[in-house]
Amino acid sequence: MLQANESSNRSRPIRIVEVGPRDGLQNEPAVIPTETKIAFINALSRTGVVEIEAGSFVSPKSVPRMADSDDVFRKIERVTGVRYSALVPNERGLERARAVGAQKIALFTAASETFTRRNINATIQESLGGFKPVIVGAKRDGMAVRGYVSTAWFCPYEGRIEPADVVAVMRRLLDLGVDDVSLGDTVGKASPMDVRRLLDLVVPQIAASRLSLHFHDTYGMAVANVLMAWRDYGIESFDSSAGGLGGCPYAPGASGNIATEDIVYALKASGATVPVDELKVVAATRQIERYLSHPLSSRLSQVKGPDETRKL
Amino acid sequence: MLQANESSNRSRPIRIVEVGPRDGLQNEPAVIPTETKIAFINALSRTGVVEIEAGSFVSPKSVPRMADSDDVFRKIERVTGVRYSALVPNERGLERARAVGAQKIALFTAASETFTRRNINATIQESLGGFKPVIVGAKRDGMAVRGYVSTAWFCPYEGRIEPADVVAVMRRLLDLGVDDVSLGDTVGKASPMDVRRLLDLVVPQIAASRLSLHFHDTYGMAVANVLMAWRDYGIESFDSSAGGLGGCPYAPGASGNIATEDIVYALKASGATVPVDELKVVAATRQIERYLSHPLSSRLSQVKGPDETRKL
Repeated sequence: MLQANESSNRSRPIRIVEVGPRDGLQNEPAVIPTETKIAFINALSRTGVVEIEAGSFVSPKSVPRMADSDDVFRKIERVTGVRYSALVPNERGLERARAVGAQKIALFTAASETFTRRNINATIQESLGGFKPVIVGAKRDGMAVRGYVSTAWFCPYEGRIEPADVVAVMRRLLDLGVDDVSLGDTVGKASPMDVRRLLDLVVPQIAASRLSLHFHDTYGMAVANVLMAWRDYGIESFDSSAGGLGGCPYAPGASGNIATEDIVYALKASGATVPVDELKVVAATRQIERYLSHPLSSRLSQVKGPDETRKL
Repeated sequence: MLQANESSNRSRPIRIVEVGPRDGLQNEPAVIPTETKIAFINALSRTGVVEIEAGSFVSPKSVPRMADSDDVFRKIERVTGVRYSALVPNERGLERARAVGAQKIALFTAASETFTRRNINATIQESLGGFKPVIVGAKRDGMAVRGYVSTAWFCPYEGRIEPADVVAVMRRLLDLGVDDVSLGDTVGKASPMDVRRLLDLVVPQIAASRLSLHFHDTYGMAVANVLMAWRDYGIESFDSSAGGLGGCPYAPGASGNIATEDIVYALKASGATVPVDELKVVAATRQIERYLSHPLSSRLSQVKGPDETRKL
């Protein structure tokens, strides 16, 4: 299972793509004031994460929690070395992202036909076709492009997804010119065995610098998946959400995104180089926490007491 | 890292030692009525776990939550195939355990001198010396004996513990005649890398049937540790607490014991044979949950909706 490039990969610094301000807050029932979102993103910008998904330029009617994304992008303090990205569904979204100076856009599709139809009312093929002008437009404007492949292991409607179907969508996205692909465990049911099965197919087909894994902790296996993917496959980039913000829309009340601070802690404790300060991530979430009606799902943030207690 | 006996070990059924009624409830601030504890243990007896730590025969003054253990042991319905054990500190405790028909006793020591002194006011050597007559007495009465080695990776006072120190205590316990040893990550800081380092030394020195691992999820790495220990070292027995009951006394407010249902789910999802019904475990915790002032830390129990949602 260990790849030939083991030693070189394991010493490369891990890249954390912070998705809390978008994927996290979009799925929280609480309404967070725009100023608080801005302060949250500003704090996250100083934790060591390389990329922050700061908002979404979809219809405010379909995603009301992200209606202030233009304002958020205009007012955050950009930190050198951090890329600020936005989810966009189409050319109209791209225009909004460009207007506020987003450095990267993210496009969203899935490996499950049923999920794609219910989520964006299109076939996978149609969704990919729609991306073409958006990607061309983004590139022309010097913006980077990420492609999300959701339901990469399980679909809430179809159940288990074939790895070959995931690879097919990933390859199409790469052919369309996306800079990186994020494979998402939307329902949080993937075990390390499931992750291995997919990575056996995926890893030979994509450079480590262009792949990110996006795990949800709904069933408690996200940290195990991250550690295994790093150690056994040399995966270098993970999406995560500060505090574990964002529930699981397909498992009401349950935990959704894996917490940034928890995977940073676990990776460091496992010998990985992770240039992120997990205690600064926890500190950043405190201003959001008071608006929530539930405790943060992150383990590290629940450890009370002096910082000393939480240190490695 | 993979052991020579890989194929045989990985197909053997996993043994779950349920510690919720003792290690879990002892560390919960809530007072649980005796009748509820009994109903909880009776429900757990029908989940597939092979052993239940049902109480503790220590001084009621030092551990008030376990003052009703005699009553609990007398009134539970014993199920064939399940062993009911009790923590005992000394010969007086052994007498109480024998009087109520406990089939197994558990003795508690640690790999850290400071922890042992603060916890049981003795050196490790003294604690082991005190076990001798208890073990002899238990064996004479046909009771099995477990030895706990707490702080097997980290000590809340001394920090990192040397694997050789853990092995030394384990060997002494085996020499004294204990039937099995449980190595505990008391503060929940062990990463899979730390677990590997210890298991490299431990596994060659003890039969798989005599070893159990006891992880806490304080820092979110417990499931990763369980899956790695099973897959890479053929570990067959794990301690866990239904619902994740029991906080971490060394990290106030944080998660303590790993939840039985979460490791059962993760092990099954990874291809292990685990003869435990994780949804019955969740159901058993519901009667306890209503007495708690906090949500259960288990991930699986937070997934709402029909059982279907939680199925593998």
